[in-house]
Formats: sequence, C-alpha cells, structure tokens
Amino acid sequence: MSAESSAFSELRGHLHRTRLLRSISNTLSYDQQTAMPPAGSDWRGEQLALLAEQLHQRQSSEGYGDLLAAAESELAEQAGASPDLGRTLLLLRREYERQRAQDPALVVRIAEARVRGSSIWQEARRRNSFRLFAPALTTLIELRREQARQLASAEPGANGCWEILAQPFEPDVRAPRLEQLFTPLLDQLPALLERARSRAAETAAPALPADLQERLCRDLLRGWGYDPSRCSRALSAHPFSSTLGPADFRITTRIVPDQPMASLLATAHEWGHSLYEQGLPHSDEQDAPWPLGQATSMGVHESQALFWECRVARSEAFARRWHRPLVEGLGADPWESPGGLWRSLNPLHPGLIRVESGELGYCLHIVLRFELERALLEQDLPVEELPERWNRRSSELLGITPPSDAQGCLQDIHWAEGLFGYFPSYALGHLISAQLSEAMEAELGAGTEALIERGEDARILSWLRHHVHPLGRRVNGEQLVQQVSGRPLEATAFLRHLSGKLERLLSSDR
Amino acid sequence: MSAESSAFSELRGHLHRTRLLRSISNTLSYDQQTAMPPAGSDWRGEQLALLAEQLHQRQSSEGYGDLLAAAESELAEQAGASPDLGRTLLLLRREYERQRAQDPALVVRIAEARVRGSSIWQEARRRNSFRLFAPALTTLIELRREQARQLASAEPGANGCWEILAQPFEPDVRAPRLEQLFTPLLDQLPALLERARSRAAETAAPALPADLQERLCRDLLRGWGYDPSRCSRALSAHPFSSTLGPADFRITTRIVPDQPMASLLATAHEWGHSLYEQGLPHSDEQDAPWPLGQATSMGVHESQALFWECRVARSEAFARRWHRPLVEGLGADPWESPGGLWRSLNPLHPGLIRVESGELGYCLHIVLRFELERALLEQDLPVEELPERWNRRSSELLGITPPSDAQGCLQDIHWAEGLFGYFPSYALGHLISAQLSEAMEAELGAGTEALIERGEDARILSWLRHHVHPLGRRVNGEQLVQQVSGRPLEATAFLRHLSGKLERLLSSDR
Repeated sequence: MSAESSAFSELRGHLHRTRLLRSISNTLSYDQQTAMPPAGSDWRGEQLALLAEQLHQRQSSEGYGDLLAAAESELAEQAGASPDLGRTLLLLRREYERQRAQDPALVVRIAEARVRGSSIWQEARRRNSFRLFAPALTTLIELRREQARQLASAEPGANGCWEILAQPFEPDVRAPRLEQLFTPLLDQLPALLERARSRAAETAAPALPADLQERLCRDLLRGWGYDPSRCSRALSAHPFSSTLGPADFRITTRIVPDQPMASLLATAHEWGHSLYEQGLPHSDEQDAPWPLGQATSMGVHESQALFWECRVARSEAFARRWHRPLVEGLGADPWESPGGLWRSLNPLHPGLIRVESGELGYCLHIVLRFELERALLEQDLPVEELPERWNRRSSELLGITPPSDAQGCLQDIHWAEGLFGYFPSYALGHLISAQLSEAMEAELGAGTEALIERGEDARILSWLRHHVHPLGRRVNGEQLVQQVSGRPLEATAFLRHLSGKLERLLSSDR
Repeated sequence: MSAESSAFSELRGHLHRTRLLRSISNTLSYDQQTAMPPAGSDWRGEQLALLAEQLHQRQSSEGYGDLLAAAESELAEQAGASPDLGRTLLLLRREYERQRAQDPALVVRIAEARVRGSSIWQEARRRNSFRLFAPALTTLIELRREQARQLASAEPGANGCWEILAQPFEPDVRAPRLEQLFTPLLDQLPALLERARSRAAETAAPALPADLQERLCRDLLRGWGYDPSRCSRALSAHPFSSTLGPADFRITTRIVPDQPMASLLATAHEWGHSLYEQGLPHSDEQDAPWPLGQATSMGVHESQALFWECRVARSEAFARRWHRPLVEGLGADPWESPGGLWRSLNPLHPGLIRVESGELGYCLHIVLRFELERALLEQDLPVEELPERWNRRSSELLGITPPSDAQGCLQDIHWAEGLFGYFPSYALGHLISAQLSEAMEAELGAGTEALIERGEDARILSWLRHHVHPLGRRVNGEQLVQQVSGRPLEATAFLRHLSGKLERLLSSDR
C-alpha cells in the first residue's frame, strides 16, 4: 500500500477514523466486563448504541461509498497492481454492501438488545431461571432474523439466516461444509469417549489459593513474551482477549477456587489469541487501517488460542516443567507426580460446561449449539422449548443431562449477546490447530511436546509468527490451512491427536 | 423541568446525547489511569481527540444554538416561569458561547497535547528530568494561552488568561477574591507551623501489608454506604473519583507500602467526591441532562472530599474506632495506643509532596502553585526557570527546599494535563469544608468528632445529603456557602479548626 494515490490516501484516513471509533467501543466493552458495576449497564448500553449508530453511519455513508468507488476505478486503470490491492478493495466493498443493506434503526436496536440481553442473562443464570431470560432471547432472535433478511442481498453466496449471520466470524463459511467437517467427529468421538470411561473416576483437583494462581499466571506469561508496556491483565467473569489499540493488548482470566487450573489454562488460551493479534500485520503502521492487517476468521483466532492452551499448557512436558513451582507454591503435592499434574490438566470425561470440558467432548458441545441455533433461527424452534431440546441432545451427544438450565442452555453468554453463528469457530479452531501442529512438526522435525521438553517454546512462537500470523486477511480460514499445511482442512489431524493423547493418558494412569 | 414544551424536550434530547459522549470520553480516561498499558497512550490520545472534536462540534453547532434560542424565546413568553429554568438557560448559554468562541482545530490540539503531556510527565518524573518535560509544558502553556485569547469574548467578567481558564473549575472565581481569602492563611499559617515544630520528630509510620490496606479500605466503605451494584474500585498511580453514568460511580486508591495510611485516607477522600456526585440531582432522571443537576464547582467538590478525609477519617474518634481492627490485622500495635494512631493520621510538619502534606501546610502548597501558574501564563515566567522559582518559593512559604524536581515542580500531574486554574479549588475546599462543618455542628448540636464517637456517621451523610448535595448548580460555590452557613466564605472557620486541632495534638503528645 506504499506510494499511495490520493484516492487510497483519503480512504486510509476514513478507515483510520473508523478504527478509532471501533476501538472506543471495544474499550467500553472491556470496561463493562472488567470494572463496571452492574447498575451501569443501561447507560453503557446507550453509549454502545450511540457508537454503533456512528460506526454504521460512517461505514455505510454515500461519502464513503464515493471514496471506495474512486479507489476501485483507480485500481482498474492500473496495469500490474498488487493483488493485495484488489483483495483489499474486495473486502471493503463486501463490508460496505453489508452495512448499506442494514437499516440504521435496526443497528441501534440490536446494540441495545445485546447489552440488555447479557445483563438479564447474568441474572437469569444466577437464579437458574430460563423463563427470566426467554423474552430477551426471543427479541434477539427476531432482531437478528430481521437483520439477516436485510443482509440477504449483500450476501448472495450465503444460504439462509444462519450462514448470513456467521459471515463476520467465519467469512465464506457454509453450513453443509461444517456438517461435512463435523461428520467424522460425530462418528468417532463417541467411541473415544467410551474408551475414556474406562479411566478411573477423575479425582477432584486440589484447591489453589487465589494469590498462587495469580502468581502462576504471571510466571507463565513471563516465559511467553508478555510485555507489560504493551499488555495488561484483569479479572472478568468470562476470560477474553481484546485489542484496544495498535500497542494495547488486554487479556483477562478468572480465578475459581475449586477449578485451580482454570485460571492458568484460560491465561494460556487468551494469551494465544493475543499473540495472534500482536503478530498480525495491523500492528505495523503501513497496514494499520487496511483489512488485510486484520484477523481472518474466528476459527483461525481460536486455533491460535487452542494452540497455547491445548498443545502447550496441557502437554506432558509442560506439566513436568510446572510441577515443581506448583508444589513449592502450595507446600504439598496433591498430584503425587508430574504425571498426576498432567492428568489433572487433561480431564477426559465430557463436562457439563463447555469451557470446562476436556478436549474429547468439546466439539460435541459445539455440534449441539450449532444444531440448536439453526433450529432457533431457521426451523422455528420455540424459545420455550430450548431447555428441553438442549437437555435431550446433551444426553444423546455427550451422555449427560444437565441438572439445571444454569448448567445447560444458560451456560454460555453468546446468545445473550445476540451472537449466533459463532460457536462452530471453536470447533474449527481445534481442527485448524491440530493441522497446523502437524505442519509445524513436519517442518521443524519436532512437535510441541519435544520443543517444550527442550525449553524451546520460542521456536513455536517463531514458527507461528512466520507462517500464520502475518497472513492477516490475505486468505480466509480454509485457504490459510491449505497454504500452511499443503492440504485442505479436515478432521483427521485432530482425531489423530485425540486418540494418541487418550492412549498416552490411559497408560499413564496405570 | 416537568411538563416540557417541545423546545425544552428537543434540548433535553440534545443534552442527553452530549452527556453520553462525554461519559464515553471519561470512561476512556478512567481506563487510561487504571488499566491501559503505557504503550497505549498515543492511540488513546487519538481516541480522546476524536471525542473532544465531536463534543466541541455538538456543543458549538448552529443547530444546537437554534435549539437554545427557541427555548429562550419560549421562556421569555412565559409569565411566572420557575427561576430554575432561567438559570438553566443562562448556564447553557454561557457554555455555548465558550464553545463557539473556540477554534475546533485548537480543541483537538489541546486534547492531543494533554495526553502527550501526561505521558511525558510520567517519564520525566520517573527520571527526575525537568528538561525532558519542559517542551511539552511550553506547548501546553502556549495552547492554553491561545485558548484563553479565543475565550475572552465569551467571558467578559473574567480578567486575564488565568481567570478565563479557571472558570470551568470554579465558575465566577476572580483572582483578587482568592488573594483576599488566602491572605489570612499567609498571615497565620507560618505561626501555626512554627508552633508545630515544637512537636517531637514525627515517627515513621509502620508498613502495612497491601492486603491489609485493601481490607481496611473495603471495611471503611462498607460503613459509609458503599453499594457494589453501583460503585467499583481500582488502583491507580493517582487516586481519583469518576462518574461514568447515572448509576456508575468509580473511585481509585493507591497502595504504597511505606505510606500505610495513604490508601485509607485517599479512599475516604475519593469516596467523599463520589458521595457528592451520588447525591447530586443529576442522578435523578428528571434533572438528568440539565446543568442544574451537576456539581457546582471543584472547590465544593473538594470540600466534600476533604470532609470525609479530614473531618471524619483523620478525627480522634475515628482513630479510636479503627485502632483495634488495625492492631488485629497487623498482629502488633506500632502506634502503642489509639492516640498514637490519631497522631500518625495527622502529620503536622509540611511535607515535600502536596498530597502527603498535613492539613497545616497544605494551603501553602496551593498558594505556591497559584502564584507560579499565574507567572507562567500571565507574567512570562520562562518555563526553564520554573524549577528554581518553585524551590525558592517552597523554601520561603513552607521552609523546605525540594531535593529534586521529581519531589518539586514535577510532583503534580495537573499542568502536564494542561490543567491551569485548578489548584486553588483545593484550598477553597478546605475553607468550605470547615465552614460547612461549623454550620452542621450548629444545627445538629454536635460536631463530627462527637457524631463519630457515637457511631452516628449516618447523620453526617444525611446532613450533607439534605443541605449540600441537592443544590447542584442552582448556586455557585460562594453562594452555596452563604446559603448553607448564613455567612460569606472566609478563612476563619478553617483557621479555628487548625489551631484547635494543633493544640489537641500537641497536648496528646505529652
């Protein structure tokens, strides 16, 4: 994007200001999750709605459309222009058409309903009352369906409400392709889960004091390039990662006394998200406001988070390294050995709660949500029947029936924030992470276990920084996997990883 | 403001949106002080500049001017309209004229220079390098002088650059009036300080562990009506209070190991600010966006903070109440008695640092700054001569010469943020707080010492909530004092409080 013409330079100015506004909105959301008292939520909703209105106005204005058209004509007249320019304008044009297609009043109503929905959901989950939440969910579904109707003309490739709403998270995703990717999981995971049941009952993890958990998280990050001049950390009910500026990266974790490893694993996960953001070309001033500098899909984003959580923090080598500081910090060894710590980092039985589920059951949690959100959006499943349907499918897919809605269909915040179409990205993240791991191992001649064992964590990061992070949005999620691994995305590597790890864990038990 | 006409109703809508935008800006500033990593400051500066530009545009637009004019004509046609309506429109008109008088480009440059100034100041103070800070200070002074030139036509009553810049903090303030109020302080404080020197050297306060300090702050607030559903707390380098929405109140404190009482006193101080904000009529939906619902001046604001810090938290009765939990928490009694704790809460010797100075020397710190900022803005004092002049006047007024600029003219953040004209509000706060205390005692038949002794803290808050907080901007700071105490503001009550407390402390020493 060097030697910019005037059309591109004006476009850059416009996008820069859009990015400033969006980051203001993200900062308010960050504060909402980490610091805002509950009674602040109505006002916060009004603030976010105002910003959503401004953002929509900027991104759909005729003036912006003219800027875009001028850049497009200029590009058409250039011979031998970089393909990056073409891709840049294509992505901007797609987003512009999406924004143009939406009624501004609807944009504001959705922003307000999201804040209200998440506030009511917190109360409903606390009181285990799906009835309290149902009206807000109904409103969100209606608003998002209306949005999908408006967006249909701007998404000619997407088929139906669900696919249209999923585009921002997973560009170019199609529901049948997801079903194709998930079929091997549905075929093979039940057998792996059955085999895991042969494992002795999982012992409850020992409680770790909050300050020890906090110290471990800090030490973990110190070894993985955490730079306090550019990053900061906080506690929140739901761990997340957020980029608030070109040099302002935040991650959060939660400290739960009876889930001693949750804070450490969440920190590894969110730090993986943040490392991807920090490695994207948008941190480079040159690419700053252009879409090619951004994350390409939430599936790829999740793959980076899962890489650090599952490949690194849940590895046997990592457990060996961390056993001693944990035992010293606690003044006791409730795991009895590094192997015991490793086993406690890798529960095999599928949990009731998605975020606490081990790797074996996790994707079945996603299939459940993928099915149900399509049923709600496209098959007229009545909202009041959601708990019953959830519990039935949970029993069928995972072999467990939630004893309460708080531990069932009220467990996730996503739908309360109007996020439909997001969940499959988590499963894609597992698949992508596994396939990228194998590609890394093939190239370096050593997998994550061996590299961590040798203390060569830096080579892992370096490989990701070289092969994955800099691609930005030059390719979509599936193209990224094809380019880096030389093969189309499939579930094979992930299933190979799971069955290998399962056997190692089962023999470590003995 | 009930039974609103259409002009007033449109005006209300406009002001509501302005308030939303301003609170977004305040939220970014809050995050900047409590969570943002240092490298985020350039981007944060751009975000705040964008919001400052939008706010200025809204507050100075012709469309807003038309709304205001329509409301004014409507009011002129009403017989027997409430005086509140007249005052409301007068305050809005004044602010509109101020905003109209300013060049939008200057507004943006000032917003950027403030963020840059405070970022450089932090580095300069850390490195004790005034030279590093001087260019940023020079820029801020030039920008603010230019702003005062532009504002002169909108402030016909204000005389000179300093008074013009001080108006937003202390409406209707005049420099000669401040000199008149400060003269008795300059006359009598040196003798009180001299008498305090007869006190034995002040012993260093015992260090308190961070978690004990944190627990004490929490317990303090629990007794003073802190409601976690509407309030939240954080740590920051400089304690402050901020209102981010009608039901979203934040306070911060800092935990410094070798200043064990600083966190407790700062918490009391900032909570006093917040109680004022919470008691203002702007929390009531009816008055929400109207100026009468707001704080009337920073002097009154400080008086409320100082009320809880100096009248309550530094009282002898309070020390008696808190001695036992402190000793229990610490497992030792380094103060040897409740009286020892009280003495340690009340240092008599003037400190090098304003915020750590006891009540006796504090106002002399303010006089020093009041003099120097007028010299910088109006008497062409060269920036490079500031350290020398600061040190000389510090020696003359306080009898101490700072050993470094970090402990001298670099100690405060105000000028680094372009805040000139703010400091005298702190001294006014002491005077107002003292005069209101006497008024309360006259009415209730008991002063703060007696009420705290009896555990009747709630009556103190109730008196303030009844007499002080609901006035909002119906009166300015001096009018408020006249109305509540029945006398014009003067230094007498404050000097009476100081000499009384000094004698009690000196005899408690023996």
